[in-house]
Amino acid sequence: MKIGFIGLGIMGGPMALNLLKNGVPLNVYNRTKEKAGEHIKKGAIFLDTPKELAKESNIIILMLSNSNALSNILEGNFGLLEGLKSEKIIINMSTIEPDFSVALYKKIKLKSPSSSFLEAPVIGSKIPAKEGSLIILASGDKTAFEFSLRYFNMMGKRALYLGDIPKASYLKIINNQIMGITMGALAEGLNLSKKIGLDENVVYDIVNSGAFANPMFQLKGKNIIENNYEANFPYKHMQKDLDFAVKLSGEFKAFSPLTSAINNSYILGYDKFKDEDMCAIYKSLTFNLS
Amino acid sequence: MKIGFIGLGIMGGPMALNLLKNGVPLNVYNRTKEKAGEHIKKGAIFLDTPKELAKESNIIILMLSNSNALSNILEGNFGLLEGLKSEKIIINMSTIEPDFSVALYKKIKLKSPSSSFLEAPVIGSKIPAKEGSLIILASGDKTAFEFSLRYFNMMGKRALYLGDIPKASYLKIINNQIMGITMGALAEGLNLSKKIGLDENVVYDIVNSGAFANPMFQLKGKNIIENNYEANFPYKHMQKDLDFAVKLSGEFKAFSPLTSAINNSYILGYDKFKDEDMCAIYKSLTFNLS
Amino acid sequence: MKIGFIGLGIMGGPMALNLLKNGVPLNVYNRTKEKAGEHIKKGAIFLDTPKELAKESNIIILMLSNSNALSNILEGNFGLLEGLKSEKIIINMSTIEPDFSVALYKKIKLKSPSSSFLEAPVIGSKIPAKEGSLIILASGDKTAFEFSLRYFNMMGKRALYLGDIPKASYLKIINNQIMGITMGALAEGLNLSKKIGLDENVVYDIVNSGAFANPMFQLKGKNIIENNYEANFPYKHMQKDLDFAVKLSGEFKAFSPLTSAINNSYILGYDKFKDEDMCAIYKSLTFNLS
Amino acid sequence: MKIGFIGLGIMGGPMALNLLKNGVPLNVYNRTKEKAGEHIKKGAIFLDTPKELAKESNIIILMLSNSNALSNILEGNFGLLEGLKSEKIIINMSTIEPDFSVALYKKIKLKSPSSSFLEAPVIGSKIPAKEGSLIILASGDKTAFEFSLRYFNMMGKRALYLGDIPKASYLKIINNQIMGITMGALAEGLNLSKKIGLDENVVYDIVNSGAFANPMFQLKGKNIIENNYEANFPYKHMQKDLDFAVKLSGEFKAFSPLTSAINNSYILGYDKFKDEDMCAIYKSLTFNLS
Repeated sequence: MKIGFIGLGIMGGPMALNLLKNGVPLNVYNRTKEKAGEHIKKGAIFLDTPKELAKESNIIILMLSNSNALSNILEGNFGLLEGLKSEKIIINMSTIEPDFSVALYKKIKLKSPSSSFLEAPVIGSKIPAKEGSLIILASGDKTAFEFSLRYFNMMGKRALYLGDIPKASYLKIINNQIMGITMGALAEGLNLSKKIGLDENVVYDIVNSGAFANPMFQLKGKNIIENNYEANFPYKHMQKDLDFAVKLSGEFKAFSPLTSAINNSYILGYDKFKDEDMCAIYKSLTFNLS
Repeated sequence: MKIGFIGLGIMGGPMALNLLKNGVPLNVYNRTKEKAGEHIKKGAIFLDTPKELAKESNIIILMLSNSNALSNILEGNFGLLEGLKSEKIIINMSTIEPDFSVALYKKIKLKSPSSSFLEAPVIGSKIPAKEGSLIILASGDKTAFEFSLRYFNMMGKRALYLGDIPKASYLKIINNQIMGITMGALAEGLNLSKKIGLDENVVYDIVNSGAFANPMFQLKGKNIIENNYEANFPYKHMQKDLDFAVKLSGEFKAFSPLTSAINNSYILGYDKFKDEDMCAIYKSLTFNLS
Repeated sequence: MKIGFIGLGIMGGPMALNLLKNGVPLNVYNRTKEKAGEHIKKGAIFLDTPKELAKESNIIILMLSNSNALSNILEGNFGLLEGLKSEKIIINMSTIEPDFSVALYKKIKLKSPSSSFLEAPVIGSKIPAKEGSLIILASGDKTAFEFSLRYFNMMGKRALYLGDIPKASYLKIINNQIMGITMGALAEGLNLSKKIGLDENVVYDIVNSGAFANPMFQLKGKNIIENNYEANFPYKHMQKDLDFAVKLSGEFKAFSPLTSAINNSYILGYDKFKDEDMCAIYKSLTFNLS
Repeated sequence: MKIGFIGLGIMGGPMALNLLKNGVPLNVYNRTKEKAGEHIKKGAIFLDTPKELAKESNIIILMLSNSNALSNILEGNFGLLEGLKSEKIIINMSTIEPDFSVALYKKIKLKSPSSSFLEAPVIGSKIPAKEGSLIILASGDKTAFEFSLRYFNMMGKRALYLGDIPKASYLKIINNQIMGITMGALAEGLNLSKKIGLDENVVYDIVNSGAFANPMFQLKGKNIIENNYEANFPYKHMQKDLDFAVKLSGEFKAFSPLTSAINNSYILGYDKFKDEDMCAIYKSLTFNLS
């Protein structure tokens, strides 16, 4: 059983290393070969095109930054679909639009009816990727999920099977919808506090003592107070996910006023803050362009 | 040093018991005497009017359900203000409007310039009141705060001095503003999940695993799934606090779209759900009158 | 010069009659032939398939109720695209999603590079369609617009050329976005009035006397007061257009809190009121399921 | 029958002139006497204090810019209340908070039980004040309204009696609530248009052709396009009125998401634009600090 791993960035890099660490024979591909240095050193074989990697692997895992990158890998010259023969398992772990995921599923089945497909977006960022403590949400072909579970367990602390595509994508969006609103709750509270003249450290202290205290408030609250907006989870990614949540709400007729309100707040300062951390929403609320 | 305690309800009852447990000599008053049974058994002296209690006590603590009840105790016949002579410390621990608190301060100073006043709303409900683990937010006369600290420590795990009145009231409102929006984040996520057809237990599970997982999501999420809306923190109290937050935002020109949106959602189902728990906001979002 | 007209419903029916009235030789097609009775009587030739109509006409006008109907006409068996040879002008006057319109443009150019395409959604409903007083927003091939102008002038009082596709679709959406929010302004005012206990007739009177008085307030206000929600402009169409406006706002990063808020209000009562008039938004605001 | 008029500003000045023009004997008072020049020339008698004016007049009309100014005139040294004897009619035409109006009513009745009181806020600004074409909303003592009607008719084109205080204040707020949201509808539409790249003049043209076209869109739309934000109806007054509407919605449990959203948008740019015209809301939406 040979695993192919495409996309060795901030997330994919450490995830692939966790597979190697567990003794899994690995083929790897990345647009820039330099990022594969550590993997090659640990025994991975670098292949020159997605097409070749597809031929040489039984399970192909994709971890790319967005739908465009994914499209290039799949449908570009010497792309993965060209090399797709029979009975492969394709696992897309990148976060993409639900519609795109459904379309992908169809394309793969059309090209190779005997192959399987899973979408498997993850919850958790850089650190959990390194520690192998991601939460993996999967949907698609169930047998493929069961077969792949041992590999998921090397990369994450939990893996859930959610049914048909795009249920995993949906759940990822809902998770980030709740995260975005919760982030906004803190930002609005801190903004009102400042206008009123309360000491932000005291507010931070109280907010982190109550029934709704949580690690995100602790981390992001501290960053806001220290004026540290270095991107951990980028502002623009949060806005993109909130936009998905708004679209889903429209499509499924779910009344979601907070989701809309926080999305609009992210839109408000988008041009200025898009490359900072999602907690820069605090600066959008204050109408503060600096 | 004699302490007088007025208001032996869900919160005040166990708070007064904690003072008795620590050997504090206590005068008590409650509109209905029955609620004072256990206190009397443990050595408290019941006085027949707030006026008498005021005369017989050095520090007078008030824990009532709203401003109206407080007004009656203070300004009614045989009210507290009638009995107010000199050098008393009045501590209002009930949650009231900031303006009302400022007005109260003035009335007390007018009646007895040598007396002191503190507003000291608490964070935490029934259980922390019993366990003496409330968080006490205080503002007003600083010497009075320092003098009263040993009593606060019998009722709470922390007591903070925040400066002039009504800063403690403000912070209490902001705490509940953040709580209300965070509650709404969960409710909207669960509502969208349901419309999409995701298993609510899986959503619950994921939401309680991530960086923003918190005890309130665990408790309220479970209650929503189990259709249990028995009032712990009543819906109408949350709406009242959000209304205060909206007013403060208008007064201090703080951009607070989430606060407004969640307040409107609470208003939406107010007539139907006001006496249920605040997590019944979930039912307002679903436009579900059953 | 032969004109073909497809779609003889509430809008298309009277529009085609206006062409006949001006002496234009007309081919017509409709899914159910009965609706063409009056047109045939006035000289129109009924063709049995969109394919034949395409062959027999130089300019083909489409006025259908939604994208699905349009897809069937174009791409179904014996569909319009099958009959598309060379140098035709296709004019889609149905309101459809901007993306769909762009895709349509590409399909037509692929099938027949020498043909032209215009999207030309209209402003105005039943009555202006009959009276030939629609406003026609057009974008696409400019020469085709100039060539078609004399026909537009038979159906509408004004026709504007807006540039590349999908600019006309965009402007139609923005027009309805402003209409939807304005409708919501009246509904919220009337709802608050009712809660306060003001006489709705007096409010109606005042609202229709000021600087923002407009025919829609006059008509819809009266209907709300008289509890008349018979569909003129259907609730579900307004929600669909607001949903487009929300999506555009997300895509182009336009801060649109009112658009989001009114869309959510339409979503709130969607299941109950979708087939009533758009002014039934008033009933959604009152959380009134009757 | 002698009329006293207090407050000769932008609104009060021309209103008082209209009384003089109709041959009404007039006492006037203004904080700065210069503003009374034209009135005196036309026969008005200037009195040195509100107290004296009250003594010398049967009906006393107040038209001041806000509650503070009104309080000074009424309760300051040599204030109106000092001179209030018996059987006067006091008419406050300034726009003030409903609560303040109720309190005013009580104060006047306490000081002089035989006197009457009307609140009579107006709809319309500078031009209608000059032309005597204001709309006057009145509530309070009905006989006083009937008695004063002939004077109202000299200042306005219509005067409505609405019942008990503060119903006129309420209706004024609701009128401005609807105006504010409607203004916001235009601003959001123009903002989205700009982001999309539509020609703002075309949008303006279309918006002013449809069923919801109105004089305000015509005027304010033109001003926005021409970047003209000179205060006609000041931004800060609109925000104040929207704040009242939000408070009323909270008090009477009216679901008002658009009102909240537009109020927040006004709050967003408040510090920058408060002294410009209310149509500067357009600049707040664009997050444009210039």
